[in-house]
Amino acid sequence: MASTTTPSRDELFPFELVRPQLERVETSIREQVRGFDPAIEPYVAYVCNTSGKRIRPALAILVGGAAGGVTGDHVKLGVIMELIHMATLVHDDIIDGANTRRMVPTANAKWGNSLSVLLGDALFSHALTLATDFDSIDICRKVGNSAREVCQGEIIQTQRRFDLTFTKAEYFQVIGMKTGALFACAAGLAAKLSGMDEAAEARLYDYGMKLGTAYQIYDDCLDLVGSEEVVGKTLRTDLVKGKLTLPILNLLETASEAQRIKLNKRILDQEPLDLPVLLGIAEYEGAVESAVDTALAMLAESRDDLAPLGKSEYADALVQITRFLGGLLEKCRR
Amino acid sequence: MASTTTPSRDELFPFELVRPQLERVETSIREQVRGFDPAIEPYVAYVCNTSGKRIRPALAILVGGAAGGVTGDHVKLGVIMELIHMATLVHDDIIDGANTRRMVPTANAKWGNSLSVLLGDALFSHALTLATDFDSIDICRKVGNSAREVCQGEIIQTQRRFDLTFTKAEYFQVIGMKTGALFACAAGLAAKLSGMDEAAEARLYDYGMKLGTAYQIYDDCLDLVGSEEVVGKTLRTDLVKGKLTLPILNLLETASEAQRIKLNKRILDQEPLDLPVLLGIAEYEGAVESAVDTALAMLAESRDDLAPLGKSEYADALVQITRFLGGLLEKCRR
Repeated sequence: MASTTTPSRDELFPFELVRPQLERVETSIREQVRGFDPAIEPYVAYVCNTSGKRIRPALAILVGGAAGGVTGDHVKLGVIMELIHMATLVHDDIIDGANTRRMVPTANAKWGNSLSVLLGDALFSHALTLATDFDSIDICRKVGNSAREVCQGEIIQTQRRFDLTFTKAEYFQVIGMKTGALFACAAGLAAKLSGMDEAAEARLYDYGMKLGTAYQIYDDCLDLVGSEEVVGKTLRTDLVKGKLTLPILNLLETASEAQRIKLNKRILDQEPLDLPVLLGIAEYEGAVESAVDTALAMLAESRDDLAPLGKSEYADALVQITRFLGGLLEKCRR
Repeated sequence: MASTTTPSRDELFPFELVRPQLERVETSIREQVRGFDPAIEPYVAYVCNTSGKRIRPALAILVGGAAGGVTGDHVKLGVIMELIHMATLVHDDIIDGANTRRMVPTANAKWGNSLSVLLGDALFSHALTLATDFDSIDICRKVGNSAREVCQGEIIQTQRRFDLTFTKAEYFQVIGMKTGALFACAAGLAAKLSGMDEAAEARLYDYGMKLGTAYQIYDDCLDLVGSEEVVGKTLRTDLVKGKLTLPILNLLETASEAQRIKLNKRILDQEPLDLPVLLGIAEYEGAVESAVDTALAMLAESRDDLAPLGKSEYADALVQITRFLGGLLEKCRR
């Protein structure tokens, strides 16, 4: 098994460059916590403190830096994106029955599903309300729409579990909605907040969409080939839960008729499909390889979308993120 | 047992007066459904079609009518308030494990908790995004804040289940947040959309807050004294779930030491406290009576808050709602 890991914040992007601004993000997240009713504060604080990678805030900050300078608005945008992301994680963990995330107990493991449903809702509505601070209806609308996309992507994913008619086109639609939308919103709105024109905003939006999509493909590969001890969350759950991810869709595509029937039966019986089973299928390696190739091609395209930013260390950092993710993807090849 | 029922829409307010506008609300809700991804439409349609009383839209419309005329903006405000309300019901039903609402299966009974968590999220984010149509940051902020209040009220309620230190002051805070906030937002923002000044908006907000609070007290009394066949949902659940409502808080206040110990033990053991048990306690009737009196006093106050609207059939209808709710509350007395 590859020793692939979930990247730490320091590895994924040039942390030193954005450290001061990411600290402002952390400070602002802590301030948001204090904006809740005192009875609710500890729950929100717990969820906010289980340190994530803060990729979405980092994107907002780096785009801001590359587009003329990081402002308080870029920090706020990052906070909003991160709060929406946290809200969806709280609800995802309920849906997946997950007990651990980032090495610590999930909200549902600590306080049960009821409180966690409401906690996610509170984070969600707080984030969307915070977006009104921008005094721009257009920004509020784009933040709201990205949140809608995430929810809708999650619904389609849930609804299509164990559905063997699920196509690759649908897979890309789902991951674009559930993961791409927030990355895209973070990068696109950061450009807008810097006063860039609509064309530039759209290119940066595309950068975020491609990066987010590639990141989700990486995450889906990791679920198959990663090491649980290193990644810090339960792996090999996608197939148990009937989630047909890109490597599995590739596998189904390249498998022989007899193999496909065997795989279909296991999926429909909701039998865990562990590595030994998959390794017995000739094209397993090819299926992961092909998913990695797809993600790498997207990352290459995403770099072109950075053109409107011109040259700067911030723009370089946005390239570097794609290179680093590319490196992680390479490690998923056996 | 009193034959108290959940009021039908026709009973609660002068339906004829608002029929055309409430039909516009229904049409607009159906249009919203079509705004979702086709894969999600049927789920949203199901939740939207299980016809509610549409009290919140009716408030927006009546205030609009009384303040100079109902516009498309009042209809839109009504739709937004109703979508937020529906989102919270979908999540409430998960939390309460409810199988039936308004005589039909709940979303969680039909499709399970996972899909219902996400369905509520999608409705929620759709409603908050729809608020951006007003092109007013202030309105977006107020809609967002009312949604936040609802979520926070629900969290505190969940968190304080089976907590015998829960006070009446806290009860009023919780129901003001979880039920009052949306009523208040509907009435207050309707006044604002009609161009009324801030003072008038605040009075109408107060009207909605008091009406919503009285409505929740009625609902809490109904859970104790209503007839399940007539109300169309599972009753007598509050105590089983450890929800300390106003009649129960009154009961705990007036019970003798021996009775209180007995009640406390049942609550903490999470034993169902059915009517026969409650009837064995001397002050049970007084506890419901007192809750009814509290709600009636609030309704009387709410009528004063209608002063800025002057005289009209719409303003009369807003009074009539409080009278009708008062009548239902009277029926809760044994």
